[in-house]
This record gives sequence, structure tokens and C-alpha cells, in this order.
Amino acid sequence: MTQVQERVRNGVDTEQMFGTLDLLKQQPELAKFTFRARNRWIDGAHNRSTIQGFYAAGGEDTSREAAFAVDAGEPAILLGTDTGPNPAEHLLHALAACLTTSIVYVAAARKVRLTSVESVLEGDMDVQGALGLDDRHRNGFTSIRVAFRVEGDAPAEKLREVVARGRARSAVYDMVTHGVPVDVEVDAA
Amino acid sequence: MTQVQERVRNGVDTEQMFGTLDLLKQQPELAKFTFRARNRWIDGAHNRSTIQGFYAAGGEDTSREAAFAVDAGEPAILLGTDTGPNPAEHLLHALAACLTTSIVYVAAARKVRLTSVESVLEGDMDVQGALGLDDRHRNGFTSIRVAFRVEGDAPAEKLREVVARGRARSAVYDMVTHGVPVDVEVDAA
Repeated sequence: MTQVQERVRNGVDTEQMFGTLDLLKQQPELAKFTFRARNRWIDGAHNRSTIQGFYAAGGEDTSREAAFAVDAGEPAILLGTDTGPNPAEHLLHALAACLTTSIVYVAAARKVRLTSVESVLEGDMDVQGALGLDDRHRNGFTSIRVAFRVEGDAPAEKLREVVARGRARSAVYDMVTHGVPVDVEVDAA
Repeated sequence: MTQVQERVRNGVDTEQMFGTLDLLKQQPELAKFTFRARNRWIDGAHNRSTIQGFYAAGGEDTSREAAFAVDAGEPAILLGTDTGPNPAEHLLHALAACLTTSIVYVAAARKVRLTSVESVLEGDMDVQGALGLDDRHRNGFTSIRVAFRVEGDAPAEKLREVVARGRARSAVYDMVTHGVPVDVEVDAA
């Protein structure tokens, strides 16, 4: 029982984690992943993404038995009917989720038991940009602030190290801070 | 009845849209918005964001009666239990949703009736980066591909123009392609 508790830390199976890392060291070609989302417009600002399959470890992953559905919308002031968070809010969620999971995994690897990880994210934008009213304003957020509160069984300094390492390895933090090339193709009929 | 149908195009109230644009031209200080997400770790790769209030048009917007909750997770191969799309997939959803809403709003403004907007997004990453195995690989996607299929009552060339303009005004497309400064604060206990 004690052994089982040691193996699973912060809800992460550390034996599986270290096994995955060893496998990828031996066969780095298995590290190529492709994630996907399919989106369909419903009405107005309401659209929905379905997310299920992805490519991983040399083949198509079929372990998800059903697709996830995630809805987007806009509040009334941005001409929607609140059918979901708006796209910029979804981006904040993606960033919060990735930083949090990175922190939790790093803590598990470093034998730190976490009891609480909470964050508040804020992004500022001047909508004159996205509305096409004034090109001196960019379309997206000019800046994003993330405030984490982390509790666990390690000294504050150690917890800060775990957060710093999680941030340094977060996929979405990398993308949001550095950008990604995006290719858009259009089939119009 | 005809007048009502003209006013609402693609589910967007164009009278409200042009009224908002006129108001912001007269009072550009109302264009400052701040969006937020609060995230809480649940267990392992499972965490949840709640999204409700935001700052807009000179004050706190309280029109949303309840918070949205959005869950994140990881599939088994990435040590999770599929409690939601993973953070990188949520980023693809944010991008798809923003491009789609931008396209729909531009079409409404330009008197184009859309009948269908669908997209498939793919992002490629080598997880050796995020797993800390090989620094030659970045943590996030190296590239994202977006394939749109758009149908409506305008010629293909016009529909392509609408997509191009929507892309040029999309907040999340701007953020994902150009990046945003992110400040992270940590309160550790």
C-alpha cells in the first residue's frame, strides 16, 4: 500500500512516467505527435469543436471512446448569446491548463506532493484592433498576467522551483509567448 | 419580417454591430477589455477553468449569470485519464473558434449569408521538447494547419475575401502567430 502511494504522486503514475521517458530516449522517433480539432459553426458567435483522435508514438491513437465537444460564444456586448467562453478566454484556459499540468508532472517527478494549485489569468485587449477601427492596436491581448498559488509538502523555495520548471516545459506557454506558424487553406463554394 | 431578416444575418444583429462600431469611434476609451480565467487543479492532468466576469466598456460586465466550466486532461499515453481535451487541443479550439467567429462577423457586415463554416486544425509537436529530453525541440507545436470549408450565397472569390479579412482581424490568430508577453507570479506556501 505504501509502495502504491509512492508510485502514484499527485495523481501521476511516476513509474509509467519514467518508463515513457526511457522509451523515448531509446526510440526518439516515437515522440512525434499531431493533435487535432474539428470545428463547426452553429449560429452567430456559437461554434463547437470536437476533439478525439490524434497521432502519437508511431500511429493513430484510438484510446478515446468518444469525442470531446467544446463550445465557444461571445457575451452580449460582443454580439453573442453566451453559448460558451469566447475564443480569447479559451486561450487563457489552454494556458492555465498547460502550466498547471506541467507543474503537477514536474512535482511528481521531483517527489513533491502538491495539495493545491490555483491560478488566475487576465488578458488585456483594446477591441479597436479586432474590430478593424484602429490599426495602432493589435487584435489580441497586449499582455497576459498569471498569478499562481501553490501549496504542497515542500519549502516555498522548492515549490517555486517546480513552478519555474513547469513553465519552462509548458507547450502552451511556449506557443503563447513565442508564437507558431499557422497555415490557413480555404475551400470556398 | 423582411426587415428583421435583413437586420440579423448569420445570427449576428448587424444594427447592433454597426451601433457598437459607431459608439467606439466616438468613445474609443470604451474599447479596453480584460478577460479572465480561474483555474484549479483537481488531480493528475485534470484541472478546470471557470470563466465568468470580464471588464469591458468602462466597467465590470456582470451579464453572465453563471460561470462556464471547462475541463482539461491528457490521454493515457500522456499519463492522464481523458478528463477533457489536453491544453494543446484547447489552444487549437481557441484558434478555430476565433477564426470562425471573425469570418461570420465579417460576412454579416458585408451582406454575405453563410450556410456552413467548418474547419479542421492540426498541430505537430515532438514531445521530446516538453518532456525535457532534447532541447533541440521546442515545447509547443512547430506548425499548425487550418483547413476551412466555407459555403454561402456569394461567389467563391467573395467567400475567400471574407475568410482572409476574418483571419486578418482574429484576436487568437494574432496571438498564436505573433505571441503575447506573459507575466507569471507565484505565491508558494
